[in-house]
Amino acid sequence: MAMKLPKGFEAAGTKAGIKPSGLQDLGLIYCLDPTAWALTSTRNQVKAACVSRNQSIYRAGTPIRAVVVNSGNANAATGNQGIKSDEDFGIFTANALNLTDSQSVLTASTGIIGVQLPIDKVYQALPSLVKNLKSESPGFAESILTTDTTTKEVAVVLKNGARVVGIAKGSGMIHPDMATMLAFVLTDAVIPQETLRDLWPRIVDESFNQLTVDGDTSTNDMALVMSSNRVPEDALELADALNSVCMGLAEKIAQDGEGATKLMIVQVRGARSATEARLAARAVALSPLVKTAVHGNDPNWGRILAAVGASGASFNQEKILVKLQGTVVYENAPQNFDLEKLSSTMNTETVLIEIDLKVGNHSAKAWGCDLSAEYIRINAEYTT
Amino acid sequence: MAMKLPKGFEAAGTKAGIKPSGLQDLGLIYCLDPTAWALTSTRNQVKAACVSRNQSIYRAGTPIRAVVVNSGNANAATGNQGIKSDEDFGIFTANALNLTDSQSVLTASTGIIGVQLPIDKVYQALPSLVKNLKSESPGFAESILTTDTTTKEVAVVLKNGARVVGIAKGSGMIHPDMATMLAFVLTDAVIPQETLRDLWPRIVDESFNQLTVDGDTSTNDMALVMSSNRVPEDALELADALNSVCMGLAEKIAQDGEGATKLMIVQVRGARSATEARLAARAVALSPLVKTAVHGNDPNWGRILAAVGASGASFNQEKILVKLQGTVVYENAPQNFDLEKLSSTMNTETVLIEIDLKVGNHSAKAWGCDLSAEYIRINAEYTT
Repeated sequence: MAMKLPKGFEAAGTKAGIKPSGLQDLGLIYCLDPTAWALTSTRNQVKAACVSRNQSIYRAGTPIRAVVVNSGNANAATGNQGIKSDEDFGIFTANALNLTDSQSVLTASTGIIGVQLPIDKVYQALPSLVKNLKSESPGFAESILTTDTTTKEVAVVLKNGARVVGIAKGSGMIHPDMATMLAFVLTDAVIPQETLRDLWPRIVDESFNQLTVDGDTSTNDMALVMSSNRVPEDALELADALNSVCMGLAEKIAQDGEGATKLMIVQVRGARSATEARLAARAVALSPLVKTAVHGNDPNWGRILAAVGASGASFNQEKILVKLQGTVVYENAPQNFDLEKLSSTMNTETVLIEIDLKVGNHSAKAWGCDLSAEYIRINAEYTT
Repeated sequence: MAMKLPKGFEAAGTKAGIKPSGLQDLGLIYCLDPTAWALTSTRNQVKAACVSRNQSIYRAGTPIRAVVVNSGNANAATGNQGIKSDEDFGIFTANALNLTDSQSVLTASTGIIGVQLPIDKVYQALPSLVKNLKSESPGFAESILTTDTTTKEVAVVLKNGARVVGIAKGSGMIHPDMATMLAFVLTDAVIPQETLRDLWPRIVDESFNQLTVDGDTSTNDMALVMSSNRVPEDALELADALNSVCMGLAEKIAQDGEGATKLMIVQVRGARSATEARLAARAVALSPLVKTAVHGNDPNWGRILAAVGASGASFNQEKILVKLQGTVVYENAPQNFDLEKLSSTMNTETVLIEIDLKVGNHSAKAWGCDLSAEYIRINAEYTT
């Protein structure tokens, strides 16, 4: 997919030789002008050097010009040498872009934890990466992948012609306790930085934070939004567009979850609060027993009920409604349904689980995937 | 294993025809005298009828005489009919035992959620079950199993000759947010009921609540301790014995986790508090990425660090120590080790992960197991 970027942005990807596979592993997004931006990062206490560095730049509050990303190496838990490599990552990139301040370049790394980043390879690859910069996404979208099987891009065009384009990677170690992957959302719609920073965590909470593949929280997660502020737009419309781009990316990541054969969408309604709606939806999407049942086309709704029950969301077990692929399987008590027929409706690419808690009027969605033997294979053989 | 029960207890198991397999599925523990007892139950909001009933008997505080257990059917999420069946379960058992008060009989169910309990089959099997009562455990230990591959019994003899015998079942839907399986611990050591009720939750927190197979919390969990109060014993020695019986059962459940090929023991030291030590140990034992790495003999310690980092326990990532099968893999920074050699030491029945958080002097253990393709097979094909 050759996706056109919003006005004022350029991107590129290249092969720096970090991945043993020889695939693209170094990517760059560049903004012609200083950008308004907002960032959410992993809540894992073990933070990659890039996460700590970006958070400190975020606190400074100044505009940025670029984000450089490598895949194949997380540069996490690599001690002082790793911190130095990450600083060099920013400095070398700023130099290659002729930017005077290395603090105007964010860095992002993803891949194996605990191995030193070959910063010399990055250094050598940067000039050609900068030369490759284009107003299209493909090279960049490829360069950030790890165990992903496809690139992940979503775009929305607003009324006045402004655009929102999101590019993400993520397939495993995906869990909703902050951003859960790398996501870069670019727009040319005019928005003050302060407004963007207010809005962003709320959008991330409803999208990326409602996404789980395996319950593991990465050390390198981040979700970054940048605006080149070129096209005046309605603020509400922009918020909606950002929301739908992030939800679209979350869905694509779940769909491409490690070993996944099916996308699982969990829709919770009737919750007492938005927080409880999100909690309940996430608990179902996370449950390995629900995920294996979905894998096996097994309408084992008791596991869904048990997951909601353990989520912390309020409800009354005598009243709660559970629907599986549109069929009511529980409401007040178990419902009669044709087991074979319902099972056959689950033998498809997307399985929808709907839950009405019936104690309020808040709702939330969560995205997950089934758990397959392929997940075991991928993750049992990762470093050896 | 024909394990002798503590003085004053009898037990039995029989085939009531609840399990389609035709295996034993109805068990009974009977105490000749009124017992001191304590109970912990699942924290899942979706509670089986037996859990609600037992909790109400617990609040009344009176001694009990028996616990009756069926496997093959959880009698959970079965509405009013399920509540009635559970009451009948207690009444029929009290009648068969010639007890005047059905509230002196606890009930426990385990198996599939959402299917009505065939209480008529239980009724017909009860007389022969009572006739089978013996001062030994085997029939009972078998009758409570579901996907377990072996019975789980642990015994300790105290100085004065009092005994503590624990019998448990559990293999899947095992997670430490309360008791996580059925466990019945019997002793003839003298202990006042109030002391027992003070002690029990603490013992459960250090043993069963540190056990995880898959992160799912059952609707039917309970851990019950009963004393026939026949042999005077030292209170501290009894507490130690109860503790080691429960830890032994927790280990056996993890060892027999669904699809497990290896027991994973996680030992955390140097935590700021006991709670944080338990949190960190549990997070590692729960992580699907650590579990699959252990399955594949992969010394991927970055996943261990990431799991501790997401656990909520305090530490400094520059100081933390991680040992895998006795080899230091991380301390302040990644350590050099022979990947092939360490991998080969993981190709064994028990894998030990040791973590020193270096911020205090509290420690805790957690038990888990590897995650295998067999787990997927077992759970993808449970009801269909």
